[in-house]
Amino acid sequence: MINIAVLGYGTVGSGVVEVINTNHKSINKRAGAEINVKYVLDLRDFPGDPVEKVLVHDYEIIANDPEVDIVVEVMGGIEPAYTFVKRALESGKSVCTSNKALVAKHGPELMEIASAKNINFLFEASCGGGIPIIRALNSSLTADEIDEITGILNGTTNYMMYKMATEGSEFDAVLKEAQQKGYAEADPTADVEGYDACRKIAILSSLAYGRFLNYEDIYTEGITKITPEDMEYAEELGMTIKLLGTSRKIGDDSFYAMVAPFLVGQTSPLYSVNDVFNAVFVHGNVLGDAMFYGSGAGKLPTASAVVADVVDEAKHLHRNIMTNWSSRPLKLMTMDEVEGRFFVRVKGTTVEQVETVFDNVQIVNLKNLPGEFGFITECMKQGTYEEKVHKLNGNVITMIRVKD
Amino acid sequence: MINIAVLGYGTVGSGVVEVINTNHKSINKRAGAEINVKYVLDLRDFPGDPVEKVLVHDYEIIANDPEVDIVVEVMGGIEPAYTFVKRALESGKSVCTSNKALVAKHGPELMEIASAKNINFLFEASCGGGIPIIRALNSSLTADEIDEITGILNGTTNYMMYKMATEGSEFDAVLKEAQQKGYAEADPTADVEGYDACRKIAILSSLAYGRFLNYEDIYTEGITKITPEDMEYAEELGMTIKLLGTSRKIGDDSFYAMVAPFLVGQTSPLYSVNDVFNAVFVHGNVLGDAMFYGSGAGKLPTASAVVADVVDEAKHLHRNIMTNWSSRPLKLMTMDEVEGRFFVRVKGTTVEQVETVFDNVQIVNLKNLPGEFGFITECMKQGTYEEKVHKLNGNVITMIRVKD
Repeated sequence: MINIAVLGYGTVGSGVVEVINTNHKSINKRAGAEINVKYVLDLRDFPGDPVEKVLVHDYEIIANDPEVDIVVEVMGGIEPAYTFVKRALESGKSVCTSNKALVAKHGPELMEIASAKNINFLFEASCGGGIPIIRALNSSLTADEIDEITGILNGTTNYMMYKMATEGSEFDAVLKEAQQKGYAEADPTADVEGYDACRKIAILSSLAYGRFLNYEDIYTEGITKITPEDMEYAEELGMTIKLLGTSRKIGDDSFYAMVAPFLVGQTSPLYSVNDVFNAVFVHGNVLGDAMFYGSGAGKLPTASAVVADVVDEAKHLHRNIMTNWSSRPLKLMTMDEVEGRFFVRVKGTTVEQVETVFDNVQIVNLKNLPGEFGFITECMKQGTYEEKVHKLNGNVITMIRVKD
Repeated sequence: MINIAVLGYGTVGSGVVEVINTNHKSINKRAGAEINVKYVLDLRDFPGDPVEKVLVHDYEIIANDPEVDIVVEVMGGIEPAYTFVKRALESGKSVCTSNKALVAKHGPELMEIASAKNINFLFEASCGGGIPIIRALNSSLTADEIDEITGILNGTTNYMMYKMATEGSEFDAVLKEAQQKGYAEADPTADVEGYDACRKIAILSSLAYGRFLNYEDIYTEGITKITPEDMEYAEELGMTIKLLGTSRKIGDDSFYAMVAPFLVGQTSPLYSVNDVFNAVFVHGNVLGDAMFYGSGAGKLPTASAVVADVVDEAKHLHRNIMTNWSSRPLKLMTMDEVEGRFFVRVKGTTVEQVETVFDNVQIVNLKNLPGEFGFITECMKQGTYEEKVHKLNGNVITMIRVKD
């Protein structure tokens, strides 16, 4: 029997208990032992819930019980999660977590403790909910040098972009709808400003390139400025707009990473990832293109990923299996140096003037927006784009990057 | 140092050697040891190729060398692959293979030998080329009961269906084009008749449900009867036609599996899998929908998957890791019992008559095909469909299943 303690009986925590109860037969078979929920830690009481029998309010009970093999941290936030997790690892208990903030901030330290103790710190559910992307990067894509990882990493904003693209709605209206459906929180900042996606692309990039990317170094732009008119331009171009977290390896040792809205064309598999779904696109130097698609959030999909970590830790109780992470920092190039194409909406200028400043632009006009037009530049460094665009008379209404 | 022997220096075998040479640094790091290609077995000579130094023509040399830890079987076909692989496993060498025919036919026996010897028999490259679906089913989706697995498992036929859908071409013309591009073989039977997809869905289903599905039990229908007119109907319905390998668990212990062309709607993530790409859709009882997308074939993507198996076997030299396979046979329900919706093209009958026989049909007309029409039935057992369709006067031009 393998005893686990679940820290936090919120959405994900109650999902974890539910999944273990529902699929106990196949889970135990795969884990090679019976998985027993010995404790659930929460400050609250849950009268009438079967969890009452194992509910504790004091972490000391879990920390001091040598029978607890695996600690499942699904409280969220940095504290007290960090203190609890560190203490569990130091006392030789494996930990799995769905907590992207914790992994993005303290991942390297916690991974090193786990490695030194020959136990495991796993976090499949921290990026992309139920999509098994962490394990794929660690165990499957091991023959490849990954040179790009790009994801639709936030279900709330993908739902909003999808609604704006298909229904022509305004940002505020779609946000309200998302809140009513429970897809967006009362304070939607972390989602709509890209902070959530930023932590996820930091974690994924650290695994893909085997170097630690600090999320605070990543340029992050949310979706709050995207308008129905931008979506109309996108549609006219046969594209759509998605919030992407993306990073690339350029040459031997240069990297960039950012979170921003991008115009995505129909040839990209990310184009068709709609509604609240998430997807992670990976390019390997021998594999080529691959994409992993699924539910990026939600109680049961997230719990499915957490419990898969529990099974893996049960199978490898005293054997460290996360091999592709290092504390060596990953340094990013400056945004000025990052190359790409740019979609620009301008007014008060002319196509002729744009074509004097930019070579090989693709012009796009919308009949219902006669006072302005849009263009897509050729591929250039962002610094060059900014120099050039300042030479234009008139005003830039908006600039959105193009995913190539 | 871990010594490997590569059996067969064809497309995949030369790809394996190339991938190990190209990414040797990161591969060795992940494997935790230097991977050394000690032998390549092929009947041919390769004058001038660096492989000459390690080329052998006699399997005895490999079989009798106790320094060989891992045998990579990429010859294809049943014999002599089966004899070579069995002998390697019996002498305690782990084996990985890209050979779907071998796995579909002899998988259970070879897995059991590997398990008894506490070594590994892995076959990531046998289904979906570079898509890491086998490892996902074995190691990632361990918290779920899988109840559906449906894939676009053959790149050749997906390319052909895509061309027919987008260019309105005839089957024969598209086949010729695919052959000219090297996507289809001179004898395309295994692809276009669905035999290749059949072996792959047999392997995937065996892993997904933990029971052995014999590929010979699977109803298999190819794409040779699909016409440009069928594609026009699909487009009119907002759908497309794909060759799918699919299996489902119905209730506690009933399963069906088949390979057939299906009408696929835009809400399915499989709808947008175009060109030579492959994708595997999985539904888990807690995970919900997930999909894995990538290059289903090709020298380097396939070699990427083979080498990922080599890395996994190097990390687990004397520890069996494939846990979710059993020799217990999976029994399929008869096709008469399988439920679904059916798209039917008919002539010599009327909408009124169709509506007398079938409830709640969706009728579809094409202006350029005035002598006929199509309809989609509601969900029913195939046996019921067949009884009903026989009651119609007139002729059924074609029937294509609808993916729900």
